[in-house]
Amino acid sequence: MAPPTPRQAVPIDLKKKPWEQPLPLHNRWHPEIPPVTHVKAGELIRVEMVDWTGGAIQDDDSATDVKFIDLSTVHYLSGPIRVEDKDGIPAMPGDLLAVEICNLGPLPGDEWGYTATFDRENGGGFLTDHFPCATKAIWYFEGIYAYSPHIPGVRFPGLTHPGIIGTAPSMELLNIWNQRERKVEENGHKSLKLCEVLHTRPLANLPSTKGCHLGKIKKGTAEWEKIAIEAARTIPGRENGGNCDIKNLSRGSKIYLPVFVEGANLSTGDMHFSQGDGEVSFCGAIEMSGFLELKCEIIRGGMKEYLTPMGPTLLHVNPIFEIGPVEPRFSEWLVFEGISVDESGRQHFLDASVAYKRAVLNAIDYLSKFGYSKEQIYLLLSCCPCEGRISGIVDSPNAVATLAIPTSIFDQDIRPKAGKVPVGPRLVRKPDVLRCSYDGNLPTTKNPAALMALYALWMNNSDVKDKLQLLA
Amino acid sequence: MAPPTPRQAVPIDLKKKPWEQPLPLHNRWHPEIPPVTHVKAGELIRVEMVDWTGGAIQDDDSATDVKFIDLSTVHYLSGPIRVEDKDGIPAMPGDLLAVEICNLGPLPGDEWGYTATFDRENGGGFLTDHFPCATKAIWYFEGIYAYSPHIPGVRFPGLTHPGIIGTAPSMELLNIWNQRERKVEENGHKSLKLCEVLHTRPLANLPSTKGCHLGKIKKGTAEWEKIAIEAARTIPGRENGGNCDIKNLSRGSKIYLPVFVEGANLSTGDMHFSQGDGEVSFCGAIEMSGFLELKCEIIRGGMKEYLTPMGPTLLHVNPIFEIGPVEPRFSEWLVFEGISVDESGRQHFLDASVAYKRAVLNAIDYLSKFGYSKEQIYLLLSCCPCEGRISGIVDSPNAVATLAIPTSIFDQDIRPKAGKVPVGPRLVRKPDVLRCSYDGNLPTTKNPAALMALYALWMNNSDVKDKLQLLA
Amino acid sequence: MAPPTPRQAVPIDLKKKPWEQPLPLHNRWHPEIPPVTHVKAGELIRVEMVDWTGGAIQDDDSATDVKFIDLSTVHYLSGPIRVEDKDGIPAMPGDLLAVEICNLGPLPGDEWGYTATFDRENGGGFLTDHFPCATKAIWYFEGIYAYSPHIPGVRFPGLTHPGIIGTAPSMELLNIWNQRERKVEENGHKSLKLCEVLHTRPLANLPSTKGCHLGKIKKGTAEWEKIAIEAARTIPGRENGGNCDIKNLSRGSKIYLPVFVEGANLSTGDMHFSQGDGEVSFCGAIEMSGFLELKCEIIRGGMKEYLTPMGPTLLHVNPIFEIGPVEPRFSEWLVFEGISVDESGRQHFLDASVAYKRAVLNAIDYLSKFGYSKEQIYLLLSCCPCEGRISGIVDSPNAVATLAIPTSIFDQDIRPKAGKVPVGPRLVRKPDVLRCSYDGNLPTTKNPAALMALYALWMNNSDVKDKLQLLA
Amino acid sequence: MAPPTPRQAVPIDLKKKPWEQPLPLHNRWHPEIPPVTHVKAGELIRVEMVDWTGGAIQDDDSATDVKFIDLSTVHYLSGPIRVEDKDGIPAMPGDLLAVEICNLGPLPGDEWGYTATFDRENGGGFLTDHFPCATKAIWYFEGIYAYSPHIPGVRFPGLTHPGIIGTAPSMELLNIWNQRERKVEENGHKSLKLCEVLHTRPLANLPSTKGCHLGKIKKGTAEWEKIAIEAARTIPGRENGGNCDIKNLSRGSKIYLPVFVEGANLSTGDMHFSQGDGEVSFCGAIEMSGFLELKCEIIRGGMKEYLTPMGPTLLHVNPIFEIGPVEPRFSEWLVFEGISVDESGRQHFLDASVAYKRAVLNAIDYLSKFGYSKEQIYLLLSCCPCEGRISGIVDSPNAVATLAIPTSIFDQDIRPKAGKVPVGPRLVRKPDVLRCSYDGNLPTTKNPAALMALYALWMNNSDVKDKLQLLA
Repeated sequence: MAPPTPRQAVPIDLKKKPWEQPLPLHNRWHPEIPPVTHVKAGELIRVEMVDWTGGAIQDDDSATDVKFIDLSTVHYLSGPIRVEDKDGIPAMPGDLLAVEICNLGPLPGDEWGYTATFDRENGGGFLTDHFPCATKAIWYFEGIYAYSPHIPGVRFPGLTHPGIIGTAPSMELLNIWNQRERKVEENGHKSLKLCEVLHTRPLANLPSTKGCHLGKIKKGTAEWEKIAIEAARTIPGRENGGNCDIKNLSRGSKIYLPVFVEGANLSTGDMHFSQGDGEVSFCGAIEMSGFLELKCEIIRGGMKEYLTPMGPTLLHVNPIFEIGPVEPRFSEWLVFEGISVDESGRQHFLDASVAYKRAVLNAIDYLSKFGYSKEQIYLLLSCCPCEGRISGIVDSPNAVATLAIPTSIFDQDIRPKAGKVPVGPRLVRKPDVLRCSYDGNLPTTKNPAALMALYALWMNNSDVKDKLQLLA
Repeated sequence: MAPPTPRQAVPIDLKKKPWEQPLPLHNRWHPEIPPVTHVKAGELIRVEMVDWTGGAIQDDDSATDVKFIDLSTVHYLSGPIRVEDKDGIPAMPGDLLAVEICNLGPLPGDEWGYTATFDRENGGGFLTDHFPCATKAIWYFEGIYAYSPHIPGVRFPGLTHPGIIGTAPSMELLNIWNQRERKVEENGHKSLKLCEVLHTRPLANLPSTKGCHLGKIKKGTAEWEKIAIEAARTIPGRENGGNCDIKNLSRGSKIYLPVFVEGANLSTGDMHFSQGDGEVSFCGAIEMSGFLELKCEIIRGGMKEYLTPMGPTLLHVNPIFEIGPVEPRFSEWLVFEGISVDESGRQHFLDASVAYKRAVLNAIDYLSKFGYSKEQIYLLLSCCPCEGRISGIVDSPNAVATLAIPTSIFDQDIRPKAGKVPVGPRLVRKPDVLRCSYDGNLPTTKNPAALMALYALWMNNSDVKDKLQLLA
Repeated sequence: MAPPTPRQAVPIDLKKKPWEQPLPLHNRWHPEIPPVTHVKAGELIRVEMVDWTGGAIQDDDSATDVKFIDLSTVHYLSGPIRVEDKDGIPAMPGDLLAVEICNLGPLPGDEWGYTATFDRENGGGFLTDHFPCATKAIWYFEGIYAYSPHIPGVRFPGLTHPGIIGTAPSMELLNIWNQRERKVEENGHKSLKLCEVLHTRPLANLPSTKGCHLGKIKKGTAEWEKIAIEAARTIPGRENGGNCDIKNLSRGSKIYLPVFVEGANLSTGDMHFSQGDGEVSFCGAIEMSGFLELKCEIIRGGMKEYLTPMGPTLLHVNPIFEIGPVEPRFSEWLVFEGISVDESGRQHFLDASVAYKRAVLNAIDYLSKFGYSKEQIYLLLSCCPCEGRISGIVDSPNAVATLAIPTSIFDQDIRPKAGKVPVGPRLVRKPDVLRCSYDGNLPTTKNPAALMALYALWMNNSDVKDKLQLLA
Repeated sequence: MAPPTPRQAVPIDLKKKPWEQPLPLHNRWHPEIPPVTHVKAGELIRVEMVDWTGGAIQDDDSATDVKFIDLSTVHYLSGPIRVEDKDGIPAMPGDLLAVEICNLGPLPGDEWGYTATFDRENGGGFLTDHFPCATKAIWYFEGIYAYSPHIPGVRFPGLTHPGIIGTAPSMELLNIWNQRERKVEENGHKSLKLCEVLHTRPLANLPSTKGCHLGKIKKGTAEWEKIAIEAARTIPGRENGGNCDIKNLSRGSKIYLPVFVEGANLSTGDMHFSQGDGEVSFCGAIEMSGFLELKCEIIRGGMKEYLTPMGPTLLHVNPIFEIGPVEPRFSEWLVFEGISVDESGRQHFLDASVAYKRAVLNAIDYLSKFGYSKEQIYLLLSCCPCEGRISGIVDSPNAVATLAIPTSIFDQDIRPKAGKVPVGPRLVRKPDVLRCSYDGNLPTTKNPAALMALYALWMNNSDVKDKLQLLA
């Protein structure tokens, strides 16, 4: 009996550009992007993939590539893969596609990754109003572990996963996406209360022929022109799965995807060596090239059986999944809370996004006392295996979100202690992240309290006490 | 040497009303509510507490008490407790109060709790637009386990914790609270985009003399009148901790609270035998009376040292905490995703609250296929140890939230299977939750897809397939 | 509906001696010790118990009580409890009794325990040839945590459990026990190869009227005389469960016990706040008084159905159990190996006891470098939540055993580091364990290598190197 | 900066025999086996290895290869690897070699393994007196998971590890080994009490020129003749580590090995996809070829600093290790107990090997009720991630050992239930393991109780009850 070495279904040649790969990649969602391969239910296959930018970010000493990146080309996806049962009958709309991730990892010979924040005028991130500059940290892998020369003193095992896995939308679903996202863009950020707090732009990423790759469909053909103009961008997660950036989709997990087109047309990409919940810096996981070993099963009629739609059509569903058994084990966590009051002190109503922003800001300020720059911590919290929770969502007007950080990823004890936080040369972590200047004109978010706190630290102790008592 | 039996610092007499307790309870936050006891740093004390409603909800066969509850009296808190160091010097503003929860549990002789949803016109909940009726489930405890006659077929170990633990605010902080929350109330729900999706009301809970209890300060005195009019309600979590409803504040955890007034004036209450992240049904944990065994330490100057403020004043901080070592262990999780598209199909912008609502709705629909009413699952997801995550918060325009449910709490296999979901008498879970009628006029949220899906199920299989292919 | 407060089935009055308790205790196994109470299947009951010595060991400043303890009286057990089904029909021989431990803990007002080693001539322990003196450490509890003034710098959450839980033997089974154990005693230690390595004595503990307590059967009666002479001692675990000292029988676990007599006659005692695998110092857990909350179910015919006997009769079975869900969580472990070569360098054949002795000795020597006396570590490894594994049992002639110690119980980093082990005053842990002199004449086990190593440390570095190279 | 792709330090060509490999393998321990490569401290290297038999066991339909295997050639090891610090100075005797296992797995293209029991006259195993036949099960890998066509209904994630990792012994240490093991062999099994229970033979595996491979030293040379006659076999774990078969030496673990010769001369082999504690069937892991990614550090003087010797020389030490962070997570365990009473009913004295044998026998009998042959379970318990514990080692005369099995590896609920164990066709697991006949004359161990139990099952229920009551 032949051993079940996974069949190489989608190979990647690292020496070639994304558009030169033997099986051409695509970076849009559309029902008419033709499959590049097919797989039988139960068969173990290997799918390789480039990093989400297709090599645009380099292992070098500058963040310039991050600052000037052309985001119209992301994410490069491997696939689509047509799925058939053992009798050759394809998955059909209304079925559920169960995809087991049997294994995954970086591509041999390419064991490195990067975490970055984009410039505020070119992509931004969850805290772009605080950190408008493009920054970059390189990570190197030692088997299950990652470390970065740009963020010294941390090392952790990865919870490796694909940021994107999804099935092709049907034309009807694609239309739904385009309409609802266009509306957000058209109404503009003034219509959106959250935009006063969340400064990521653009509001939505609508179809664009610029940068578009459609796999086997050749650029310049009539078919290409037609599809490129309506194919959805890959930025957001949607009904088909897609860019959900769920860090727990790791080894041994099983994802149940709805099938919208014949053959399911499964695509995947955007491998992450590790990511924290929220992926806050946007280019925020440890981004890398990689491979998946997959096994697909078809649950006939399972979409209807298991995924009750919620919304105006039968297509308004979401995937579900089971978590795998080999996630890194951490037993000690330091947890930061945030409530839905923004940095200006304004009260929001049960807004978990605002609360989470606050929790992340709290964590950055706290950890930067241990010898780090805030930029280092922002990147770290984006890519380390931290957990972001919606802890309370009903206690008007405050949502409470929490961010839990495993303490053992640090080479020092980061818990509060009765003695002072250690300061001085031992704790200055050098070097820092790579960074560019921010040349735009948008204002950064002010934190008057930080200035006051800084001022207080300059005064002697008794003065500080007096001041605090005065305030109290 | 005397063994360290915890000193009974705040006793509760279960036969007495909250306002008749030997050490009087309070249900507001104010710097001038006088301590009822004091504790030395390092001393192990026992603090008992009534359930958050002070006995208003009964272990009986009706949800009427839930429907007509007077919410002006919640939450009854034990304390304030003045904290001093070993030399008798009190905690001071600017210090950090480290509170270790050494043990906790239900009060002996009172080993039961309840989970409920309020009527939409009297409290509501996260999904009140879907479930406007008052409902109630009773839970009984068998040591670490809880089970409910109203939700058959589930049993789970509790992750017991106090919903509320906090220090007294200073007058300055209290003013900040009252101002920012009043503003939300004054501007009204039309100013809040989330209100089109989150229907919990009122928007904020402003100070009210009605139902107010101020501990040792006698009702009717001038002092009472003055304080009652400005004392903050206990509903939301805030800078002082308070009603954070963080399920992981369990045995062995350690919370670091900022100190705003001399003595810290620690209060706690709202014991939960178990709660899911978000506490979605609002009266959503397994609510009970209980006790805490606590140990306090004072980290002098630690608020300034560790909690960098974020906002207009030095007081805009949040607590941090460490998770304890004995949380229930689950290895298999079924996870539901939600994106920030609401039930009408409208696209929101990176809104984690909307995404989480969608994830919870998806889970309810899914699990109700296994023999449960939706009301049963709504209550169950509110109180079982499920985890709510902010998975992706940067992929415009969709936030992705996930809800992970430990599969072992069920007495059946709830994972998707190639065979059909089992149906029929074996799976009809009886009885159901207790429930009242909803007599208000507010519309419930429509889910047209559910009707379509139901319709599809009435048709024969091939018809359904045709329909779905048509849609696709 | 009445809440299920556990019924107090076996109360303990801490002010009374074991033989004065309202429900009299027993310290022998015999089918004719009459039940002191009975319980219905499914009923939640509370069973209280004294510590295993019934108060012979005190919370004081001396180990004299340990040295001169009268071991003929241990262990004091609560019960027997007769178990009946809902129709009042008792458990019958051949049934399986499923006992769920719903909760447990120390008795209120008695939150302390002790760990000790016995004098080599009065009880001994696993390493009694190395540590012949009686020693004692007192532990105090802070909720889930224990700490000892005699072993500074460690604190850990307990994995609390009863050392003894078992059903009454039938007369036939009792005879089997007495015969096989008498044979060991009669043949003497020269017949036992292991006795050259394991110096615990006596070899077996045969029935003795001295110190015997038989519950409701009054001392001096003819019945007492008859039973006392044949009732089995409680020291070893046997077919009925008994003194298995399995640390994982904690909250939420479920033990399946064979039933040998009508009513099952369940007894329990010997509560441990915490224990390491092996309980190496013999009085080696954190011994305490305590309570269990139990629920019994009868699986009719289940002994036959599930417990295939292995041996000359149908009674040669062993209990099985399921582990509960709330064990303390540790993520980092330092592990010591041992092989079946004894301290004299002699090779044994696949002997896991010898290998484990070696692993424990290795751990003691290692940890004593971090500022502890060896006696402190011996007691610590006996009672902290360490794991003892049979790693390899087939690689002739060496068995390999491992001892895994959770690193987070220490307040210092105990892992090997490139820098030297820190030495000096900071690390001198004071005070030490309480200890008595050893006045016997038996030789202690020699470790020539330790002397050589000590000698080497006295030499300068280059000398040591030379010496080691010489040896190599 | 170049990404840290692990350097291929020891490659394996799967098409070649062990003795034809580019870097020749060795299967003995001796200080004079020359290094095949060297590595700098901190450098990440990849070491590949054949399976322990070098391909003697095939993925075919017969156990004949197992029955007639030539065990004189095992285990084929990769190395020795000479370790130097960054300045090129080699590890020296008295140092400690810290080896971090950064990653590991099967060799690409060879994703299968086998578990087997040897014939009683050619290798045997822990239960060879019960199972004297050679048997074999093939396992196939799907990423992290393994399944076997010969043991249907189980699938589990591997805790992959090298069975052997060790440093070269010095000549002095080698002499110690040879002397003490020869003594066991010379004294014969009559001198060993355990031999009445443990029937594995030979008692020790002394040096033999037959089957000997010494890496770069050519067979037939004078040097080869000299070394072959004194080089130690690799079967047992010893002071240098070696064949410890510790299942937790997996991804991310770090092992601290004593250094006995210049350069340390690290060797490794015997990859296991998965193994249970004890590796009871001897060829008992899921044996495979594979690779390790390693990183070495030298702790100068660390052997003396950290590994206190125990025995007649400074060389009587054992390695220690830290467990890695990504072991498979299981939350539910069914646990079997064993006490040190053997199958004939004879009492042994604190003998953990006998107790563990009993626990394993109990588990086999129990699990075989769920549709398996005993041979299937014997192999399964040898290779699945079960935990073998020394639970009590001081309660004379019984040691208590436990064997914990994760319930989720089965596709059915294996816990005891009030209803009968399901029987019938659904549960007949087909096919069975591959097996040969046993042609020897040694008697198998009798279990009279099993016959009696079988007999009882033939009788009707009331008869059984009568009989059991009679016995009771």
